[in-house]
This record gives sequence, C-alpha cells and structure tokens, in this order.
Amino acid sequence: MKNIYIIGVGLIGGSFALDIKKHFPEKVIHGIDQNSDHLDEALQRNIIDHKTDYSDLGNADLVIIAIPVDATVELLPKILDEVRDDALVVDVGSTKEDICLKVKQHPKRRNFLATHPIAGTEFSGPSAAFNGLYEGKTNIICEVEETAFKLQEQALNLFSTIGMRIRYMNPKAHDKHIAYVSHLSHISSFMLGKTVIEKEKNERDIFDMAGSGFESTVRLAKSSPDMWTPIFRQNKTNVIETLEEYIENLKAFKALMESGDFDGVYDEMKAINHIRDILEGIIKV
Amino acid sequence: MKNIYIIGVGLIGGSFALDIKKHFPEKVIHGIDQNSDHLDEALQRNIIDHKTDYSDLGNADLVIIAIPVDATVELLPKILDEVRDDALVVDVGSTKEDICLKVKQHPKRRNFLATHPIAGTEFSGPSAAFNGLYEGKTNIICEVEETAFKLQEQALNLFSTIGMRIRYMNPKAHDKHIAYVSHLSHISSFMLGKTVIEKEKNERDIFDMAGSGFESTVRLAKSSPDMWTPIFRQNKTNVIETLEEYIENLKAFKALMESGDFDGVYDEMKAINHIRDILEGIIKV
Repeated sequence: MKNIYIIGVGLIGGSFALDIKKHFPEKVIHGIDQNSDHLDEALQRNIIDHKTDYSDLGNADLVIIAIPVDATVELLPKILDEVRDDALVVDVGSTKEDICLKVKQHPKRRNFLATHPIAGTEFSGPSAAFNGLYEGKTNIICEVEETAFKLQEQALNLFSTIGMRIRYMNPKAHDKHIAYVSHLSHISSFMLGKTVIEKEKNERDIFDMAGSGFESTVRLAKSSPDMWTPIFRQNKTNVIETLEEYIENLKAFKALMESGDFDGVYDEMKAINHIRDILEGIIKV
Repeated sequence: MKNIYIIGVGLIGGSFALDIKKHFPEKVIHGIDQNSDHLDEALQRNIIDHKTDYSDLGNADLVIIAIPVDATVELLPKILDEVRDDALVVDVGSTKEDICLKVKQHPKRRNFLATHPIAGTEFSGPSAAFNGLYEGKTNIICEVEETAFKLQEQALNLFSTIGMRIRYMNPKAHDKHIAYVSHLSHISSFMLGKTVIEKEKNERDIFDMAGSGFESTVRLAKSSPDMWTPIFRQNKTNVIETLEEYIENLKAFKALMESGDFDGVYDEMKAINHIRDILEGIIKV
C-alpha cells in the first residue's frame, strides 16, 4: 500500500491525507480534484505529494473517495474499473445505501469498502483539513463482508492507526439512523438561521443580542450546500420522515404553550434533559 | 456600594459574585437563595461571604436578582419595598417586558435597573458559576431613563469593569428580538433532542453515531426547565410567533424535498450560509 490516491482533497479527504502522512511517512499521496485551485492548494499545503487525474488510477494501492455523495455514486463504478485487482477503494460518504447498491453487481465489488467516518466541521476545502480530525471518532463500515478479507484488514489497520473506532452496520440502518443524528441537525440549524435572518433584517440586532447558545445551535448552517444537497437527495425518504417527526414535536410544544399548559412545557424539557447523560457518553469515549 | 446582595447564587448570580470579588475585593457579598444547599455550596466555594435572607435587605447597597423570571416579577416589588432609598436593584432576567411593567408605578422605580446580560451556559447552580463569564459579553439595559442617574452610573461602572459592553433597548423590542436569537434556539434544540431520543430507543446507536454536529445543535437541550419554563410563559406571544415561522420554514424545506426540487434545496442553504458573516461579526467583537 504505497501509492494512495485521494479523490477530493477537501476537509475530509485532506484530513485523511494529513493523518496518513503523519503515521505512514513512507506512503506517497496523490491528489485528484475537479477543482484545480483546490488541488494546487493541497499541494502547496503539503496535504498531497502529487497532483494527478483519473487516468493514473492503475497505479493506486488505495483510493479514498471523499467527494459529494452524488458524484461518488456516479464515479465509483468507473474508479473500480480502473484500479488493479489488489487495490482497495474506500468511500467516506454520509449516505451508504445508494452507493452500496450501485456497485452490488460490479465485478470488483470486493475491492470496495463502504465507510462513513463520523467526523467533520462546518468548513470545507483543503484549508479546512487538519491533522487529527479522526482521532477518537467512530467510523461506520457497511457491508464489510462484501469486501475481500485482505483489503478489510488493510483498511482496519489504517483506521485504527489514525485513532478511529469501528462499528459495523447495514447501509439501510445506517441511512435511517444517521438521518436523525446528523441530517436532521443540519436542517434544524439551517432553518433556524433562515428564521432569524428573515426576521432580523437589521443585522446589527442579531450581532449584538446573539449569545453562544445561538451560535452553537446555528453553527451547522454554515455547512456546504454542495456537500449537503446530494446527501439530502440520496437520503430523501429517511430525512423527510425525521422532518415530519421534528415538525410534529415543535407543533405539540407550540400547542402546549398556546393552551397555557406550562406544566406540560416543563415536563417536556425535564424529560429531554436526559440528553445530558447520552451526550456525556459521547464525550467520555 | 459596599454591601452587595445576590439573590439566586447559581450560574448567573454566582458568576457576578465571582467577578465582583475579583475586581472589587473590598465589597462584601451576601447571598440569598431559596435552595439552602446552593447557599451552603456558594459559601463553601467562596462565591459569597455570608448567607442571609430577605429581612436583611435594608443593609444592601446593591441587589442583583438572578432567579427565574416568574419569581422576579413576584419578588421585585417586595425587594424594592425593603431596600434603602439610595440602593440599586438590578435584575438580570431573560425577559424584560413583564418585569418592567410590574414596577412601573412602584415608588422606588428609580432604584431599579432592568438588564439582560447575554451570557450563560447550559449548566446551572453554584457549581456552574465561573470567573469571567461576562467578559466581552453584551448587557442589554431596558428603560435606562427610568433609573436614577447616580444609580445608572454605579451599574455601568460595575458592568464595564467586568468587561461587558452595553446596549440600550425598550423592553418590548428586547423580548421580541431575544425570542428569535435565544428562545427559539432553545426550543429547536429541545425538540431535536426529543425527536432523536424518541426514535433511537437503543441509546447505543446515538452514542456511536452522533458527531460534534449533533452535540452542538442539541447542547441547549441540557438547559434547566426551572429557568426556561417561566421565560417561555412570559414571552409566550413572541415565542409562539417565532415557532410558527420556524415550523413554516421547515415545512417549506420538506416540501422542496418531497417535490424533488433539490436546486431549491441548494439555493436555500446557499442563501442561509450568509449566517457565516453574521456569526463572524459576533465572534470578532
């Protein structure tokens, strides 16, 4: 596994490159990106060692695909066509069902491993990449049994060396659960941002009155639409379901307030406070 | 201004006490709290110098009221009755209209200053208090012209010494704007927590799949119902209005997804990304 090809040298792909360089200095990192400015920037920041393109994939021992999930669905079969029989191809997209389905019958399916590292920030591009993004984070691997044993082993070795813990899940369950704990958070944050921006035309008011509570709740509304639109498209059914439940919960809370049932409002919040213990679990591990 | 009385020795009141002790070591801090455990804890943590009760308020030069806003509305007139003619009484509640209305005709109205320091965390009680909470934060002062000039001056001196910047606003505008940038954030976060908890009965799934995005979006759902229920009750009309707009925005986003209009989804998110610049303003200052 000497020649590593990163397709998409942004936050996710770039951070993988940096961690690999740190832990495996003998590897050579080749970068591919449709944005040539990003590619130049990645080279200049020493995130990659060489710029290259898809025609060079026959040289790859490992390919990490870190591009929007619609582009992954489109390009993954072609990438598998190009790589050698002993190469490992990993995708790191936030949806898994469509991606796995797309290559189900591909002759090189066993060269592919579907993963979702639960890591990231609201920023994007090579300048957002940093060393240690994956330290202590979870990587969800789907359909591991469809990947060649030797390649599974190589991938696990890489992930555990950069500090990730592994969980296995089927793609359907992954997409359903992640809609709740990730995709819905993003929409709730975007819509919060929208509601406040619409109302507060005089930005100075937001600027002066917003505290750290607003800032953390609305943080995800800074996220990239290029990345998130394809995610919402691919996970449409699950995301719509979470939105329906979220809207119902908001309406019920509003109804409690309208009817003046503030004991009910109190009880709701008290019960939800239980999220403290859950989050503590997340932070502790 | 030697004897300072803090009513409610939790996160907000306790942090004021700590900052005052740091910047004005000659002051004596007296604590009042309906929770005697909290009072003992505040004494033990050196947040206050003495425990006392309402009967002692005739000795106060400054009273800071940092209790839930319903209790403030109830107790403020009685506190004003008790204090000397040259004492300053400040409340720090998250709503301002009901509080100002309640003492509009009080003979000691000019001893009172209505403020809302935009500062806090999701934690509460004396153990949550810390030095420096107010550094660089905004304090919104309402109806400043109703407070005696000399007492305004004392208050401003205190707030600026502990690092706060001041904004003046009328109580009605305060309650309307704060509903958007603070109260709605809390409800969106609580309901997000509820939606996820309800769905993910197996907590292990949340625990493993939730990343920092979920954590920051749901952080406010750890907030105290004892503090927030009275806020929602007092600011009911404004909060219901923000909730209606928020729900409408969520429904419109869901409709875009249902109709498969992902160009629309993209455009929505792109426009809301503008929140980046607004938040940058908040962080910079």
